[in-house]
Amino acid sequence: MGIALGELAVRFGCELRGDPAHMVDHVAALSSAGPGALSFLANPKLAPLLMQSRATAVILEPRSAGACPVAALITTNPHALFARIAQFMFPPPPLHPGVHPSALIDARAQVDPSAQIDALAVIAAGAVIGPRCLVGPACLIGERVRVGADSRLVARVTIEHGVQLGERALIHPGAVLGADGFGLAREDGRWLKVPQLGGLRVGDDVEIGANTTIDRGAIEDTVIGEGVKLDNQIQIGHNVQIGAHTAIAACTGVSGSTRIGARCMIGGAVGFAGHIEICDDTVITGMAMVTHSIKQPGIYSSGIPIEPIRRWKRVVARLKLLAERGERRAAAVPPDDETQQGQDDE
Amino acid sequence: MGIALGELAVRFGCELRGDPAHMVDHVAALSSAGPGALSFLANPKLAPLLMQSRATAVILEPRSAGACPVAALITTNPHALFARIAQFMFPPPPLHPGVHPSALIDARAQVDPSAQIDALAVIAAGAVIGPRCLVGPACLIGERVRVGADSRLVARVTIEHGVQLGERALIHPGAVLGADGFGLAREDGRWLKVPQLGGLRVGDDVEIGANTTIDRGAIEDTVIGEGVKLDNQIQIGHNVQIGAHTAIAACTGVSGSTRIGARCMIGGAVGFAGHIEICDDTVITGMAMVTHSIKQPGIYSSGIPIEPIRRWKRVVARLKLLAERGERRAAAVPPDDETQQGQDDE
Amino acid sequence: MGIALGELAVRFGCELRGDPAHMVDHVAALSSAGPGALSFLANPKLAPLLMQSRATAVILEPRSAGACPVAALITTNPHALFARIAQFMFPPPPLHPGVHPSALIDARAQVDPSAQIDALAVIAAGAVIGPRCLVGPACLIGERVRVGADSRLVARVTIEHGVQLGERALIHPGAVLGADGFGLAREDGRWLKVPQLGGLRVGDDVEIGANTTIDRGAIEDTVIGEGVKLDNQIQIGHNVQIGAHTAIAACTGVSGSTRIGARCMIGGAVGFAGHIEICDDTVITGMAMVTHSIKQPGIYSSGIPIEPIRRWKRVVARLKLLAERGERRAAAVPPDDETQQGQDDE
Repeated sequence: MGIALGELAVRFGCELRGDPAHMVDHVAALSSAGPGALSFLANPKLAPLLMQSRATAVILEPRSAGACPVAALITTNPHALFARIAQFMFPPPPLHPGVHPSALIDARAQVDPSAQIDALAVIAAGAVIGPRCLVGPACLIGERVRVGADSRLVARVTIEHGVQLGERALIHPGAVLGADGFGLAREDGRWLKVPQLGGLRVGDDVEIGANTTIDRGAIEDTVIGEGVKLDNQIQIGHNVQIGAHTAIAACTGVSGSTRIGARCMIGGAVGFAGHIEICDDTVITGMAMVTHSIKQPGIYSSGIPIEPIRRWKRVVARLKLLAERGERRAAAVPPDDETQQGQDDE
Repeated sequence: MGIALGELAVRFGCELRGDPAHMVDHVAALSSAGPGALSFLANPKLAPLLMQSRATAVILEPRSAGACPVAALITTNPHALFARIAQFMFPPPPLHPGVHPSALIDARAQVDPSAQIDALAVIAAGAVIGPRCLVGPACLIGERVRVGADSRLVARVTIEHGVQLGERALIHPGAVLGADGFGLAREDGRWLKVPQLGGLRVGDDVEIGANTTIDRGAIEDTVIGEGVKLDNQIQIGHNVQIGAHTAIAACTGVSGSTRIGARCMIGGAVGFAGHIEICDDTVITGMAMVTHSIKQPGIYSSGIPIEPIRRWKRVVARLKLLAERGERRAAAVPPDDETQQGQDDE
Repeated sequence: MGIALGELAVRFGCELRGDPAHMVDHVAALSSAGPGALSFLANPKLAPLLMQSRATAVILEPRSAGACPVAALITTNPHALFARIAQFMFPPPPLHPGVHPSALIDARAQVDPSAQIDALAVIAAGAVIGPRCLVGPACLIGERVRVGADSRLVARVTIEHGVQLGERALIHPGAVLGADGFGLAREDGRWLKVPQLGGLRVGDDVEIGANTTIDRGAIEDTVIGEGVKLDNQIQIGHNVQIGAHTAIAACTGVSGSTRIGARCMIGGAVGFAGHIEICDDTVITGMAMVTHSIKQPGIYSSGIPIEPIRRWKRVVARLKLLAERGERRAAAVPPDDETQQGQDDE
């Protein structure tokens, strides 16, 4: 399934330095590439690898082209061009429209005849599966769910009643969309369940990772904007809103009613408190703790990198010593909010 | 499906200010409520929203009643009354007792005839499903599992052999109850599996969120007390005990053999070390790190909120500088525990 | 199903002090053990419990044997001996070779006749299931997956196309192996998907916990070494490599392309940045943040334990004050990297 460099240059509108008749048939990392491989250089720090690369061709920026010992496909955004070419060379497997005999589709569901419904999928009454969708094995599609055209639910995706998915969704195994949010009212030391009556709306071109959970709203809807990309094992609480084209890395949790703006980049294992607002174009580094709203775009961090344990214990000890000194000085000062609540043990 | 305010006041024993004949037929947030909507004001900070609310009626505290421009249902605990009324107005869908033809029920399982067993559920030998239970689609119920009366396993819940669930459990998709704990013994640089021979007992009125995992005990049982509420993606290790009416927010992890008391409130993404004890009525804020036992009720925190990255790097740098100064002063002092173990690299 | 202490001593090659005819038929913790129980003392801090133990026999180290009031099985590694004896006394349930009638096995899959394939398992074309494997209920095995001999997929395990599993794998419910990594290229404020073309190779004797996710590689493979043990709800990003006999506790996340060495011990909820290398024999304590490579074996930590909230707020306030002082002093100094990127809001 090789393709000539000349054809790639024409099809993707980039400059080629090298023999247009040379063929590539797979992709590889710069350092391990061999004959027939297409590679790319997106991170200038890796430029030294370029010299020794044995790839047939490398996608790179104009400024790196001179140092390239093999054919070069030149573009201002090598990673994006690589993505486009790799999508072209390695498209998802073609659909086989039709319904597997073991799938269970309610007579009141509407499945487009161009969709592929795999083994043991369950589609409930009132659900609508759009054209050219893939509903992979063991997916559960609840009542009145809508899955937009060209969506792919890879396998074992759970979508609860009423959830609305846009077009070209890509959902990975174990994801749970539209489960109840964590809505509780306290009464006499016990918890009453607050029925979760809102829904979940997901825009077009959204990817949702394996075992990620997105709760339905308590009263109004949880909303995931178009082009949002969620990695694995992310938790999105009820009534959260995430703006268009925001990407969130794995293991991050967003508490209820928080709004994250558009085009944000959120690292892994970040924690967001509830009821806060993060403005558009905010970047948050991994493992940060976000407890207040952000009104100014920028890069925000917290979290302290590891040290050898003995040294780390000193860091902690000195930090707490500092606070104790402050405490002694503060002893005559009136107590703050927590003390008035009577819930602090000091 | 409207209901008159007068009927609500009588049925739920609260004071009504306004026309008892007015009808509500849905719930809405204060700010977006319109005609027919029932809303509530639980957080006094939101009182300004009350003035403009176009809800038909608002549930609120006596002190807020005077400022309410529409009908008011008055109670000392508006959130709890809202929960009760919403439960009444929007009960879960009625059960359809019986077994879906695609469900696989072992002949030696015992399923109450009033229970509803959905598509592709698998119920193994010796399992007992109580009266009026819902076993949703694709649930796996292992051997000798007991599911108490009126429990609802929404969909795709996995319960391994021997787990005991109380009455009125509510378990969300992707939850895994009773998987092996992480029991390993080291020998010559390799790991031997320690068979996980304990069970898992879950009290009445417990809710367990999507993709939450609760391990069975190593030798004795893991125990979840009555009324405990667990959000999504929580991990509970083997032999953990959680006291009655404790609520834990999403993404929190509890290491093996730790005991958490009753009526605790644990924030999201909190980490508990193993083999510690947390007393009753403890509150832990989100993302806190709990490495020692707590003997005094109160609110406990750790975790440092974000800063712009440049400022945050200064925080970290100064913190480590402090510790280095301490280190130089400590250079003549005999080494501490870690050094004696010979495992520290300093 | 009792066994005589004498038989245990002979079979496992350890010293017995006590009556070889005494029988044990279950295991129990030291403090709750009664007649017929076999217990163990691995942690010398628990030695006081030994005095009152009513176990029939206790596995312990030579130095503890004198203080043991009941029969003692003596070994230098009590936890490992306990693991071996417990494995012997309580082996996993025997296999029932054959295919459940509801399982769906593609005609082009190869299932060893000695394997047990449970209800509603789905095995795709080209998959190979080795001798004496258990494929539990509702497992999904993708195209061309290989499952090595004697592996046990407990239930509801998802393995995507082409993943290679070694022998004696033990995989718990909800685990997802080989889902797409989080590969995105940014172009004009939107995200392009980078096809995830690599695979996932898992060595022999690997255990993978409930709801853990391991992504396939972007271009090359993700690799999990032999004897690796992964707890629940762990996230392993694309192209990660984990060395042999490393154990990782629950809720930890490893970002893409990071390499963790052999025989490491990683605590729970640790976060690893991408593209770093952790050397062999490294220990990382729970909730630590690992943002740079580690070249020296040792124990590493970060994370600050909880304090009562009022005191904790003082810690945070003083920490930030320190940094502000540093900032004022630094005001005349040229800006650092982040400022040059123009992405910081200061």
